[in-house]
Amino acid sequence: MSDRASLQNRQFHGLWAPLLTPLDRTFSPDHDAFVEHGRFLLENGCHGLAPFGTTGEANSFSVAERIRALDALVDAGIDARSMIPGTGCCAGPDTVELTRHAVTAGCRGVLMLPPFYYKNPSEEGLYRAFAGVIDRVGDDRLKVLLYHIPQVSQVPIPHGVISRLSDAYPGVIAGLKDSSGDWSQTEGFIEAFPDLDIFPGSEILALKGMRAGGAGCISATANVNPSGIRAIIDAFVSGDGSADTRQDAANVLRRKFEKYPVVPAMKRLIAERLGKPQWAQPRPPFVPLDDDVWLALDADVGELDLAA
Amino acid sequence: MSDRASLQNRQFHGLWAPLLTPLDRTFSPDHDAFVEHGRFLLENGCHGLAPFGTTGEANSFSVAERIRALDALVDAGIDARSMIPGTGCCAGPDTVELTRHAVTAGCRGVLMLPPFYYKNPSEEGLYRAFAGVIDRVGDDRLKVLLYHIPQVSQVPIPHGVISRLSDAYPGVIAGLKDSSGDWSQTEGFIEAFPDLDIFPGSEILALKGMRAGGAGCISATANVNPSGIRAIIDAFVSGDGSADTRQDAANVLRRKFEKYPVVPAMKRLIAERLGKPQWAQPRPPFVPLDDDVWLALDADVGELDLAA
Repeated sequence: MSDRASLQNRQFHGLWAPLLTPLDRTFSPDHDAFVEHGRFLLENGCHGLAPFGTTGEANSFSVAERIRALDALVDAGIDARSMIPGTGCCAGPDTVELTRHAVTAGCRGVLMLPPFYYKNPSEEGLYRAFAGVIDRVGDDRLKVLLYHIPQVSQVPIPHGVISRLSDAYPGVIAGLKDSSGDWSQTEGFIEAFPDLDIFPGSEILALKGMRAGGAGCISATANVNPSGIRAIIDAFVSGDGSADTRQDAANVLRRKFEKYPVVPAMKRLIAERLGKPQWAQPRPPFVPLDDDVWLALDADVGELDLAA
Repeated sequence: MSDRASLQNRQFHGLWAPLLTPLDRTFSPDHDAFVEHGRFLLENGCHGLAPFGTTGEANSFSVAERIRALDALVDAGIDARSMIPGTGCCAGPDTVELTRHAVTAGCRGVLMLPPFYYKNPSEEGLYRAFAGVIDRVGDDRLKVLLYHIPQVSQVPIPHGVISRLSDAYPGVIAGLKDSSGDWSQTEGFIEAFPDLDIFPGSEILALKGMRAGGAGCISATANVNPSGIRAIIDAFVSGDGSADTRQDAANVLRRKFEKYPVVPAMKRLIAERLGKPQWAQPRPPFVPLDDDVWLALDADVGELDLAA
């Protein structure tokens, strides 16, 4: 599955942006700004959007807020088939409600965290949590990308759970986002599950991943560098020989952002570039970037043209 | 504040049980069994109930499920003043909704987790998260016990945050449950915040805590040993000289339970004792106790009389 043609034959592939969630003055999702940002990303290189992931501060919003904001994207004309919203919560009923809504809205799939309050769950317990959601949603259209982000959720998704879920729900379990940032884990998922679409959670591993059979990437910094990351994927697909150069260029920018708290940093950058100060606000427990930190970031990434 | 009289002068003191949440055959909270268990605990030594804590699988239930189940307790005649439900969620609006409901229902206070999805939040971010909830609830009747359980939430509550909250909301921040199980942390909270009611999260530290100025305990195993734990507190208050003996006896039982996954173990024990098999079911990611594990547990704690 590691050649160029096979990438495009995958059900999910390419660059998907975990959409930042802009807030209005009441700290509620600003639907207009959300739609505008989603359109910008789709017009500038993203194959699709993954609203309400870790970058989108998903778990800081209520189920109702998440449903209304997703509806706002669809109502504004963003194709639901270009979206894989995050739906995994601690409470099974919340995950069911968000997942059912996403399927009904026509989304291509969902990105599903495991329940993450209790640590060290048994494999049987994790399996039952995911299986229970799939059973309760009970819709043949459902496509699930499992969301492995152990450094944040503190609940890794073991191979044994993925195998059991894939066997039990072969048309439903479609892929996995590996945000561990650890190549040995990403390679392990790609090798163990060749039929699943495996997305590294950072563009740093995009090319290495695609060469090994990975599906592209779903990366936070796609919010600010969509065209730069897309260029890696296009170069890989076209075989024009520029893929490594494209990868190196994207890495330079990624490494710069990794020095800062990435969600507040990207929000502040967008606020400054668009001249919309409110964009800089995250929800607690995140805090906006301090002005001095912004000045350092601006000096680091000043060349970035968000209107590109 | 370390003498006996001062314990009883505290706003919150004594033994509070983090109520287990029994499930019906659809895996929804079984209100009748919930009420029955709450009454049993209040009649057998608990000063009050702390429904929807970690032991109560709080974060595995939706906001609506938690509200309905708390209403069921109140509607059944359990005094709301004897309850401090858990209300802390990842999403601020969920915490606000649960907290407002608890205050409106007349609860004595709430037990509030920090938002726990994002790890290593800044102190400023944690402060804003708690302050935002208190501001939005906006009710002078609100009394908050902060819930420090770093090994599960992975988000400790630093002294700096507690100080700032206590200064900003002096009548609101009433106490803290320290479930770290680490005496140095419990002692640190008691010494730093003498005006707050500090509850160790295990009876193991109940007597040591009360002698240092602690308020009692809020312990998982209060679900199965309420009278044994209450005896420690009564002995401390009466000064009858039996407190250490009572503490040792409770410790023996606690240590036995600590060998097992405590929530499924207690649920199975109650299921067996009441002859109600459905009681044994937890929500995923927990799984029910295997039969062979149950036999071992039963052999360990066979002497325990839940009808005491």
